[in-house]
Parts: sequence; C-alpha cells; structure tokens
Amino acid sequence: MGLETVSQSRAHGGVQGVYSHASASTGTEMTFSVYVPDHEPGAKLPVVWYLSGLTCTQANVTEKGEFRAACAAHGLIFVAPDTSPRGDTVPDDPDGAYDFGLGAGFYLDATQTPFDQHYRMKSYIEDELPTLIAANFPADMTRQSIMGHSMGGHGALTISLRNQGLFRATSAFAPIVAPLRVPWGQKAFAGYLGDNRGAWAQYDACDLIAAGARLPEILVDQGTTDGFLDEQLRPHLLETACQGTGIDLTLRMREGYDHSYYFISSFMAEHLAWHAKRLET
Amino acid sequence: MGLETVSQSRAHGGVQGVYSHASASTGTEMTFSVYVPDHEPGAKLPVVWYLSGLTCTQANVTEKGEFRAACAAHGLIFVAPDTSPRGDTVPDDPDGAYDFGLGAGFYLDATQTPFDQHYRMKSYIEDELPTLIAANFPADMTRQSIMGHSMGGHGALTISLRNQGLFRATSAFAPIVAPLRVPWGQKAFAGYLGDNRGAWAQYDACDLIAAGARLPEILVDQGTTDGFLDEQLRPHLLETACQGTGIDLTLRMREGYDHSYYFISSFMAEHLAWHAKRLET
Repeated sequence: MGLETVSQSRAHGGVQGVYSHASASTGTEMTFSVYVPDHEPGAKLPVVWYLSGLTCTQANVTEKGEFRAACAAHGLIFVAPDTSPRGDTVPDDPDGAYDFGLGAGFYLDATQTPFDQHYRMKSYIEDELPTLIAANFPADMTRQSIMGHSMGGHGALTISLRNQGLFRATSAFAPIVAPLRVPWGQKAFAGYLGDNRGAWAQYDACDLIAAGARLPEILVDQGTTDGFLDEQLRPHLLETACQGTGIDLTLRMREGYDHSYYFISSFMAEHLAWHAKRLET
Repeated sequence: MGLETVSQSRAHGGVQGVYSHASASTGTEMTFSVYVPDHEPGAKLPVVWYLSGLTCTQANVTEKGEFRAACAAHGLIFVAPDTSPRGDTVPDDPDGAYDFGLGAGFYLDATQTPFDQHYRMKSYIEDELPTLIAANFPADMTRQSIMGHSMGGHGALTISLRNQGLFRATSAFAPIVAPLRVPWGQKAFAGYLGDNRGAWAQYDACDLIAAGARLPEILVDQGTTDGFLDEQLRPHLLETACQGTGIDLTLRMREGYDHSYYFISSFMAEHLAWHAKRLET
C-alpha cells in the first residue's frame, strides 16, 4: 500500500500531486493525480473522481482540465486515475489501435486471455484506489461524487449505477452511454469479455438502467460538433433509457463544442459547482 | 501575409485557434495561438500578449495556462507566439541544450552567424505579428498589454520598456529580469549577439531602466520554491532597478510555488483582471 510521490506542486493555494503505487488489482505500477485544496488542519474534504477518456493518462485532465480553481473555491479533493494498466508486460491492441489495450481499459475487469491478468480497472477504481485515497489523503469518503469524459463518462455512469448510494453526484462530458450499441464498446467488450454478452450488460449505462439501476440525477454536457457524437456517443440513447425511470437527466447540447479538453475545461467549473452543492455536509 | 488555420475549438464561449504563416522576419513557418472571446459583431477587443519561457511553444500556455475563463469574462484577446524559429534549416544549440537555439529565442534579433538568419524574434514579435493580428482578428491595437513567463517575462519587460506607451499593462511570472547578470542570459546573448556587450543592454530590463526607460507600473509574481530563483531570475535586481525611478513595481513572492504552469495558472486570472482594468476604454 506504499505510495510514491512522483511530483507535488502548489497550485491555487493547494497541492497538485502525482503519485504511483504497485497495484494489486492490475499487477502493475499505477499512477494517479490528486489535487488537495488548502484546508483547515484535520479537516476531511469531499472527493470528486474524474475518469478520463481513450488515449489519456492522469496527466491530460491534470494539465488541461481547469478544475483546480473550482476545487479550491468549493473545498473539493479531485482524483484522476490512469485509464489502463501500463508497462512492457501489459498486452496491447494487436494493431496498436488507440481504442483497445493501453489507454483504453474501459473501466471493466477483463475475463479473456491475455487481458484478464492486468486489465482490471473496475476492481482498481471501485475497490483498491478508494482505499488508498482514504488512507493517504484528508478525504471524507462519505462524501464522494464522480464524473468522466467519453470512455471515462461511461466509467462514471456505470460505476455510479452499479454502486447506488455511493456517489452523491454523477456527471459526464460527452460520455459513451451505450457501449453495447457502438463500435468502441463492441470492440472493447469483445476483446476483454469475449462472446458472452451476458457479461457485457453490467458495463453499459443504458442496460443497467433498463435492468433497474437508478440514480436520482445525472448531468451530461455534449458538444454538437463532437466528431464522435453520432457513431460512438449517442447521448439520446441515455435520454430514452432514463424516460419514466425517475432519473432526472439533464442533457445539455453545447453548440459548436468538440470532443477536446477545450470543451471539457469550458464546463468543468459548472460541473464542480453542481457536485459541490450535492457534497455539502 | 496568408494565415493558415491549424485548429479551432470553441472554448469558454469563444474560439481558441492555432495558426501558422510564413514569417518574413524569421524566414520560417511560425505558429501562434489566439483566443478570441465571444463578442458583439463588429466589436474590437483589447489584446493581451503572452510570451512563453524556455523549451515552450505556443501550446504550453494554450493548454495549461487557464486564461480563457478570465479572457471571456473580461473580453480580452489572448495571443501566444512561439519562442523561436523552428524547422530543419534553423541552427540549434551545438550540444542540443534547452537554453539556447530552438525554444530559446530570447526575444532578440541575433547578429551572429549562423543565428542571424532566422533568430529574429524581436522583429517578429514587435513588428510582424502585431500587423498580422491587426489584419486578421477583431483586435483594438490601441489597447494592448503584455505578459510572460521566465524567458517570456524577460521578453514582456524588455519589449514594453523599449516601446514606452505601447502597452497599457506589463506583468510577468518568474521573469528573467537581468539576463546580463545570469547564466541563461550570458550564454544566450554571447551566442546570438557576440562579444559586443553594448548590443546586449537593450535586451536587459534592469539595464533599460538604468538607461532611463520607464513604465508606470509592473506586476511580478514569483514562487519562493522556484528552482531557478536565486541563479537565473533574481527578481530583487528589478526591485533595486526600479527604486527611485517612479516605476510602481509590485513584486509578490508566492510562498511554496515553483516554476511550472501550476504556478502560472494559479495567478493567471489575477493578472488578467489587473490587465483588463488597464485596458478598459
């Protein structure tokens, strides 16, 4: 459970750190970032989880996410994990594609050889990393929320739906809402989980809702000029899935915004203010 | 004078663009970024110039600077040039060092062979790029201000001091204030300008002030744990230089902050608010 500090920088009055550790879940060294705002000695702060999209490491949002000013203002810890196991021993996409293997863990526990040994991002994010955060940071684990982008939006939605009551707020930027019905998800799930489609449904937000999973509310921002919108993201499937369930979905189509961190950072402060309200004591 | 659009993304209600053009000053293709906030049709907006530090391109501040929210709030155009000419024909440091050659143009016009052909960043920033900005963006060139980081802080201070009255505000993050008296500057000036020390003084903020150059005020933020503070930056030399000159220098030593964009982004909004106040009609 030893944490190694990769770097720490003072930022917006708090500390932006990058840490690594030997993960029991993935059997690899894993790296993540944590921002801890300035706080009273002994205080415990609510925790916002941010799950990143395809090709990203923890570094993308840490450098480009523009979350620190809002986290400092609201007193929020911000945790950004990596998106897959890493290292020479970790199998990658046979063709080196960006949408499978390294940088594309899809927040699931793989069952197919050779991916089942290391690709255990569900266990890592749901079990191992929260324990590590609770033990090493001034985190109030009774006040957690979760958000993510694209593949990480899929992660945020599915993890929150599978762990009802654990997160006080769930939001996403341009999430993959129905991986079973889009090429990214179909490729990833076939590779990691094999042909047994019964195992796929726990990793599909729309299917989880259809099977009865509920959240009080979900906030989604989606750019209208996002190049992945129609083929991979399809947010209206989530809208349909939520109808009549009592889930209060706010889906905001953002005119002219794309899939990049320029989009994410534009609305990050709004998401964090929304989370902060739900994370108050 | 043709501009090529490398990329444009909607961000914080405006447009973050990256552009390239064939530069007459440097004889190379040059790339820069411009953020234009949302504005009334036909409106002309004030322009903030941001000059970057060693090793940077226009991309560093564009991705990590956290300037867009403040520029959108205050209605400021934000221009970020590259730090040197680029390309296979451009001579670099013979040892490939980071502090000379590519990424280290020092905002001067070189006089020494082989650097004099392309390293003409003074002409580029003072003459060519402003003309291009005025012609292609909704810029009110009667309302300009300038800021920079480290080598770019040196650039901002010296360009503003040499062009009195042109910029309504001048600020810097961890600037090189006295390049003649520190290793980075001595190496760069010897390489670009040769032994004629008389040619060096126009590129040294403290020497320019000693020679009579004046600005109404200067704002500087400097981190106390910046690893370059004592050897390369030495902000107290600027403090001494300003004494008795009527230049109102605000030098804020920021406890625990380093030299990185975590430091810059922490105080960017404050600098832009300070600039905005001085850029009002």
